[in-house]
Amino acid sequence: MADYTTPPSDQLAAATLNDDVSASTVKKHQFSDRVLIRSIVSRPDGGAGLAGQRVRVGGWVKTGREQGKGSFAFLEVNDGSCPANLQVIVDAAVADLAQLVQTGTSVSVEGMLKNPPEGTKQKVELRVEKVIDVGTVDPAKYPIPKTKLTLEFLRDRIHFRPRTNTISAVARIRNALAFATHTFFQEHGFLYVHTPIVTTSDCEGAGEMFQVTTLINEAERVEKELIKNPPPSEADIEAANLVAEEKAETVKKLKSDKADKAVIKASVAELNKARENVAKLVERSKLKPGIPQKDGKIDYGQDFFGRQAFLTVSGQLQVETYACAVSNVYTFGPTFRAENSHTSRHLAEFWMVEPEIAFADLKDDMNCAEAYVKFMCHWLLDKCLDDMEFMAKNYDKTCIDRLRMVASTPFERISYTEAVELLLVAVKEGKKFENAVEWGIDLASEHERYLTEVKFQKPVIVYNYPKGIKAFYMRVNDDLKTVAAMDVLVPKVGELIGGSQREERIDIIKDRILEMGLPLEPYEWYLDLRRFGTVKHCGFGLGFERMILFATGIDNIRDVIPFPRYPGRADL
Amino acid sequence: MADYTTPPSDQLAAATLNDDVSASTVKKHQFSDRVLIRSIVSRPDGGAGLAGQRVRVGGWVKTGREQGKGSFAFLEVNDGSCPANLQVIVDAAVADLAQLVQTGTSVSVEGMLKNPPEGTKQKVELRVEKVIDVGTVDPAKYPIPKTKLTLEFLRDRIHFRPRTNTISAVARIRNALAFATHTFFQEHGFLYVHTPIVTTSDCEGAGEMFQVTTLINEAERVEKELIKNPPPSEADIEAANLVAEEKAETVKKLKSDKADKAVIKASVAELNKARENVAKLVERSKLKPGIPQKDGKIDYGQDFFGRQAFLTVSGQLQVETYACAVSNVYTFGPTFRAENSHTSRHLAEFWMVEPEIAFADLKDDMNCAEAYVKFMCHWLLDKCLDDMEFMAKNYDKTCIDRLRMVASTPFERISYTEAVELLLVAVKEGKKFENAVEWGIDLASEHERYLTEVKFQKPVIVYNYPKGIKAFYMRVNDDLKTVAAMDVLVPKVGELIGGSQREERIDIIKDRILEMGLPLEPYEWYLDLRRFGTVKHCGFGLGFERMILFATGIDNIRDVIPFPRYPGRADL
Repeated sequence: MADYTTPPSDQLAAATLNDDVSASTVKKHQFSDRVLIRSIVSRPDGGAGLAGQRVRVGGWVKTGREQGKGSFAFLEVNDGSCPANLQVIVDAAVADLAQLVQTGTSVSVEGMLKNPPEGTKQKVELRVEKVIDVGTVDPAKYPIPKTKLTLEFLRDRIHFRPRTNTISAVARIRNALAFATHTFFQEHGFLYVHTPIVTTSDCEGAGEMFQVTTLINEAERVEKELIKNPPPSEADIEAANLVAEEKAETVKKLKSDKADKAVIKASVAELNKARENVAKLVERSKLKPGIPQKDGKIDYGQDFFGRQAFLTVSGQLQVETYACAVSNVYTFGPTFRAENSHTSRHLAEFWMVEPEIAFADLKDDMNCAEAYVKFMCHWLLDKCLDDMEFMAKNYDKTCIDRLRMVASTPFERISYTEAVELLLVAVKEGKKFENAVEWGIDLASEHERYLTEVKFQKPVIVYNYPKGIKAFYMRVNDDLKTVAAMDVLVPKVGELIGGSQREERIDIIKDRILEMGLPLEPYEWYLDLRRFGTVKHCGFGLGFERMILFATGIDNIRDVIPFPRYPGRADL
Repeated sequence: MADYTTPPSDQLAAATLNDDVSASTVKKHQFSDRVLIRSIVSRPDGGAGLAGQRVRVGGWVKTGREQGKGSFAFLEVNDGSCPANLQVIVDAAVADLAQLVQTGTSVSVEGMLKNPPEGTKQKVELRVEKVIDVGTVDPAKYPIPKTKLTLEFLRDRIHFRPRTNTISAVARIRNALAFATHTFFQEHGFLYVHTPIVTTSDCEGAGEMFQVTTLINEAERVEKELIKNPPPSEADIEAANLVAEEKAETVKKLKSDKADKAVIKASVAELNKARENVAKLVERSKLKPGIPQKDGKIDYGQDFFGRQAFLTVSGQLQVETYACAVSNVYTFGPTFRAENSHTSRHLAEFWMVEPEIAFADLKDDMNCAEAYVKFMCHWLLDKCLDDMEFMAKNYDKTCIDRLRMVASTPFERISYTEAVELLLVAVKEGKKFENAVEWGIDLASEHERYLTEVKFQKPVIVYNYPKGIKAFYMRVNDDLKTVAAMDVLVPKVGELIGGSQREERIDIIKDRILEMGLPLEPYEWYLDLRRFGTVKHCGFGLGFERMILFATGIDNIRDVIPFPRYPGRADL
């Protein structure tokens, strides 16, 4: 058995995805002797300078072929650390080549890095000296053969799709954007706050929320229990009562007879047992199959949290309690909608980034949103250019240019009223929209995309929306017609960010809640933030998957989240 | 109204929590003119070198007092960016001092930084020239007065508790540990994978899982609908049928009479309408109140995901699909247990960090776990020493020493068998445990704490546990009695991490599943990872709240998560 007693060596330098790859030796993998393929092939010299070094790599064979009449094999091996493969050469003397060359085979091998002959594409290749482990594949049965596979096909093989070039590139881009998000907010003094997933605030209308419950399981448990062990009948209880009464008589008699104390004690014990039995039977007789009811309604008092609970649709209201205490905060977590949408833009479970800033107004909010989006674009160009090149080649040839443009162009900022005027001009000039344009409408996706893609050809921030189409918590402007809301529109996806300055004035926000026909009681905690030490504050939400669609040019949101959830589907 | 058209200035340098505070000017706040109080008072010189600079700050008054017969006031202002307050001095000419001095008042003020008179505690204070905004507090009604409040009391005022010194310090420590986690894994080439919250894999036994459903809402909707608009009776349907038959007769007659085509067409239209009406009534007559049933069971085919769905208890099995494709991955997200536990160590919703490493064995797993825990300890000592000092002073005077010890001491590594032998020696020497010690038991918390706190007085990794007490996916060792599992035990909390090498051999893992009385079918996707290109891999899970308890010395887990969820409680 292995020796586990040696602590990790401090000499093992960490290999990172963001390594300086100009060093003349390969960085060792972090906790074992394996090195990441990225640390070899993603160097500016393509790994050429590493010739002569002995390394161990692990990965899956993308393609393999036997050569020289079966005397050796070429394998293209990928370990997911970068889009590029490492070319690996294995002699027939070292391993069973027929096994190794199958697509999908896993290999852990050790060998010497060498410069390949002049004129080949690779700058470095690995000559294998030792095959440590092989995980074979029966090509007749492998669910994702080497042929070109559609993204739809892969959605039905969700546990294998990260082995494809596309989904692994998406995984690296998604990872990069997540770390860029944390880095941006941390560098700017924001605290990451974990807002709850399970919530009892049904602020946005329970209809579109998933319910979280233990009532159904509990009802099924009781039902099974009652079938196995039926509840007592009234006759059972009566019989048990009779027994208890008899025992009571006996005790009474023994006492009046002044019987031996030990005998009385034993008799009392029997009486108690009989009474306990009655109580138990009465308790069990109350057990009813089905979900517990009270006054004709479901009795949520018996649910796990003692009341009705849901999956959150946004962490905003909760994170405001932290913004109104520690000033700069953000959430980054999953949110949920039980909408029956089957479009390529909707998921039932998706990730949102929601910063909230105290002592700040709508302009600060826009500044923050613009800086954040630009930061992410720079980050991808800086850290994921190889993956972006893959996307440009296979999915959207404009995606790199789009990132560059957004990273470097000041966002256009126009009021909602100006936006409507521009759309009306466009209509006059012959542009056809499916949705009629007039002041007061919620801008449709076609309007948003016209503004950002056609009219300005760059990101656009639209601000000061009509009060009537926006949420109660958005700050009413001095015109009393609009609220201090803003949306960031970008080419390819339209709305990427929605935000607002929050209404900090207690009287106005109370009026707004009542105006919308909502009850005040569930919002008392939220109103408290305005009653005691209220501050101007603002925030926004970015749909994380939308950002990935924007960056990669991929069309369907189901392909940019590892495990998509939508009506009828929640695989694994 | 504000001018929103100016894009953010590139000249506004970002103020960060991790700033180099040795610069001679205050760093501007990121998106507005506000500066973080941390960027003033947390400098090595306490801010002394910043005298003469004009700044704007925002925050909440911790304490305030009028002085000089009401001619000016001292305010201790905190904005959550660090534990220290900024001393702010306001003249009566500038503002209503009686309002400002109340604890909890929010202030946004501008003024000049000055060196206070010799002999005072502060190195710098702010002389206010302009009060921009004030959010007042009625001290008679403020829910968290200045007096010392217990953590229990604060749990009932969850929306205000981040305004306290303790909960804001916990928020900063939690934030630091979260970013340390991402930094550690990113630096080591791991991809952050968002595993799903809603899952249809009920691998760990449905009893302890929360159910996610839209069936109850839908049933309530139908019920309400039926009360408002009762379903048709059989007589209603019969009547509608009669109407349709009459219409059919009419059409028949018109056709045989060779009536005008337009008349026939109109009549056919009426017939179709009547038939549609029948169909609608029949459809509505099927509507039944209550949760839909099929074959005597709940019909989950009608639930949102087309089958029974739950909140995840762990992302491990799902993230393995990524480890078996892109080699180094981790999850960091919420997980759920519907256990009816009322202890200070259990939550229904808690955060877990779960790395998974391909081409790696149990030793690599231990190396990774040890390096990760040490990294977090170093990070806190480096970035949060002021908050740690607050914790040491108020909650656990040993907490800083504990971090230092864990950061610098190699973890002891012993096999389970050795651990049991050591415990038996302890028993022999007179140590009393509540749980009997013998080979084969699951170590209890008291055993774990004895090993790490008494016997070794440092972190201990126990590895190779008996097969019978561990999960099916852990790799069977050559002795066929133990599995390649490991737990990291640390002083103060006992088990901090649990992990294992995963069983990569298809035949053995199938046997293990069946041995445990589990069905194979739900695990077919998991088995597929072993059928095609299988690799040696390992991983572990760290309970994030446990790490915070370990670091801070706080006793109750409900105080180290922003919005604790436990039986009977899910505030906000």
